[in-house]
Amino acid sequence: MNGSSLALRQRSLGDASAEFPLFPPLTRGCPLTSTSEIAYPLEVVYDYARVDGSLFGQEPGPDIARWSPLLPPLDAPTLGEGGTPLLKVGDVYVKDESSNPTWSHKDRLNRVTVSAAVACGAPGVVVASSGNHGASAAAYAARAGLRAIVLTSADSPPAVQAFTRAYGATVMSVPTEKRWPLLREIVDRLGYHPVSNQTVTHTGHPFGPEGYKTIAYELFLQLGEVPAAVFAPTSYAELLYGVWKGFVELRLLGVAGRTPRIFSCEPAAGGPHARALATGAPAAIVEPGPSDAYSIAGPVGGHRGVVAVRDSGGEAVLVTDEELRAAQRDLAREGLWQELAGVAGLAAYRKLRRDFDGPVVCVATSSGFKDIGVGSRRYPAVEDLTVDDLMS
Amino acid sequence: MNGSSLALRQRSLGDASAEFPLFPPLTRGCPLTSTSEIAYPLEVVYDYARVDGSLFGQEPGPDIARWSPLLPPLDAPTLGEGGTPLLKVGDVYVKDESSNPTWSHKDRLNRVTVSAAVACGAPGVVVASSGNHGASAAAYAARAGLRAIVLTSADSPPAVQAFTRAYGATVMSVPTEKRWPLLREIVDRLGYHPVSNQTVTHTGHPFGPEGYKTIAYELFLQLGEVPAAVFAPTSYAELLYGVWKGFVELRLLGVAGRTPRIFSCEPAAGGPHARALATGAPAAIVEPGPSDAYSIAGPVGGHRGVVAVRDSGGEAVLVTDEELRAAQRDLAREGLWQELAGVAGLAAYRKLRRDFDGPVVCVATSSGFKDIGVGSRRYPAVEDLTVDDLMS
Repeated sequence: MNGSSLALRQRSLGDASAEFPLFPPLTRGCPLTSTSEIAYPLEVVYDYARVDGSLFGQEPGPDIARWSPLLPPLDAPTLGEGGTPLLKVGDVYVKDESSNPTWSHKDRLNRVTVSAAVACGAPGVVVASSGNHGASAAAYAARAGLRAIVLTSADSPPAVQAFTRAYGATVMSVPTEKRWPLLREIVDRLGYHPVSNQTVTHTGHPFGPEGYKTIAYELFLQLGEVPAAVFAPTSYAELLYGVWKGFVELRLLGVAGRTPRIFSCEPAAGGPHARALATGAPAAIVEPGPSDAYSIAGPVGGHRGVVAVRDSGGEAVLVTDEELRAAQRDLAREGLWQELAGVAGLAAYRKLRRDFDGPVVCVATSSGFKDIGVGSRRYPAVEDLTVDDLMS
Repeated sequence: MNGSSLALRQRSLGDASAEFPLFPPLTRGCPLTSTSEIAYPLEVVYDYARVDGSLFGQEPGPDIARWSPLLPPLDAPTLGEGGTPLLKVGDVYVKDESSNPTWSHKDRLNRVTVSAAVACGAPGVVVASSGNHGASAAAYAARAGLRAIVLTSADSPPAVQAFTRAYGATVMSVPTEKRWPLLREIVDRLGYHPVSNQTVTHTGHPFGPEGYKTIAYELFLQLGEVPAAVFAPTSYAELLYGVWKGFVELRLLGVAGRTPRIFSCEPAAGGPHARALATGAPAAIVEPGPSDAYSIAGPVGGHRGVVAVRDSGGEAVLVTDEELRAAQRDLAREGLWQELAGVAGLAAYRKLRRDFDGPVVCVATSSGFKDIGVGSRRYPAVEDLTVDDLMS
């Protein structure tokens, strides 16, 4: 749409001097710096000197290919991801990612990772996911004419199970502990391209956060300035790091003069990034307690989230399910129905009660249709309802 | 956003010489031409001579206020409706309206009708709906700080019931035959503004289709030309008429040189517009048989759909549930999961097998999450899944 990719190579987040060719994507983390306890992800380096300044003169809209110079090659077709609304709700802005093609932010990532699968000539993609990521990967694979295997959980909400299965992928519920060994074997034996994590701490796909950078570009154009702070639901922190990197690039390119503080927003029942930041570790693994924010309540953190929060001057915020539920209810009363995990940014902002010297953005990631319990209740007809009943 | 509304007055579709002030919206149809058997809707007339030609030089995007000169006054805030993706799928373009704030096209209508409620000083809105329309009205009312009463059906899919109830509205399941008398009483006694129909054949809200005009504007800009044909799921034909009127305006304003053929796409189990067009009636009521496309399978048609199809040189197409299911499955295999009713446009295009002298657009109206049966099935974990199982 706006010229071809200026991506040059991969670079380790464990050691910036460790660089690798752009392909193949190192989906098992940095081979030089990772240890048996901490895996370091890769990021993508671009030829920034060649970026045309007019790139940020355009309007946001569907199809992230409008940012193609600052993305890895987009060999998979679009489903219309990006260009989501930004709404003022109370004293914050809410970026509504539920308007994406599969109704979550994950579509920005999967446009990029499924493109990598196409570029690599893989016969399909494989993903371990209990919800949004799996369905989004299945949708983009279908659109690209690739097969998809989704290893999911029998505990996913039934409506989400229907969603994940809608796109023609091979979807199998498997016990959680068997998901990752099976995923690795599918990669090794079938040659499928992995679009979810394979490492001890999270590294995921090195190209994934690049898709999320487009949220930063859109926010800058929608606000007309860089926000003072961004709060985002945080699981593996690919979203968080992508948003951070997008703003870093805007400053690097001279488009913007500052970067926002980035806040990781995790369920209090777990919070691997909060743990890592508190202990000074590059990444952490925790034993999470129960949380209904199932999309972001995993045990495994990654180094990307630590980098985004630390380098931006942000903080890790933990929110309880009760705080999430209050934010979810209040946001719905403003016309935005989000999955419980999707409001972690707003819940964390409200909990922190901090003043900022500029706009604050809470990224809301996913539709309320994906929540636990949706569809579990029927409401019988009230046979003799009268207007007087409604007035009382 | 782009200047204030140029709406002047209401005009009857029963007699173009019958004109009325813009407010109050005549939500019970044209008082001069309607009979006990056929109700005629109103439309909105604008001061077209004052439309700035630069209006169509802008990009589509969220918030239909960008088209405010050609809409009734937008006194209710946006949720980011509009700016939805247009995707090439096979030999047609699919306009994916599931990317709207409540994941259906209805948001374009409700931005406009809830605005009318605000402008009228109503304490709330009332709507009779089994799904998308009710939830969307509830969301826009919540955003505008108005109360909402949704009279819905106990037969709606459970996930849709959760959706409708999410936004804080008073939602009551009532027997179908009691919905409309109750709605009228709520309007008369509580002063609530009705955003759904109150008349014998459908007239609905006179401002409603104005919101759908923005689909025509977007299609023109996204395609760079007027399509040869538009196929859209048809229930009351507010969408169909709105799209038609938008293209009529583009031609009237000299922006475009032609208009598309408009095809009403109804379930074969009913099809009041097909009936009216076949018999030459201004509108019709049928006794529908069973259909799982519950969003568009009602008995009552309206004059708007007859006008759009007849004046555009289009046709009425009826599709069976089997044809809908095939289109739904095939579209999901391209990465777009739609409600069964949402693919009626595509199913009708495929059934018609007609060649057109230009691009064909099928409007896809709503997310697959809203379908019957979604969430009714659980998939147990496969304990001993192996890669060999996946290869076989």
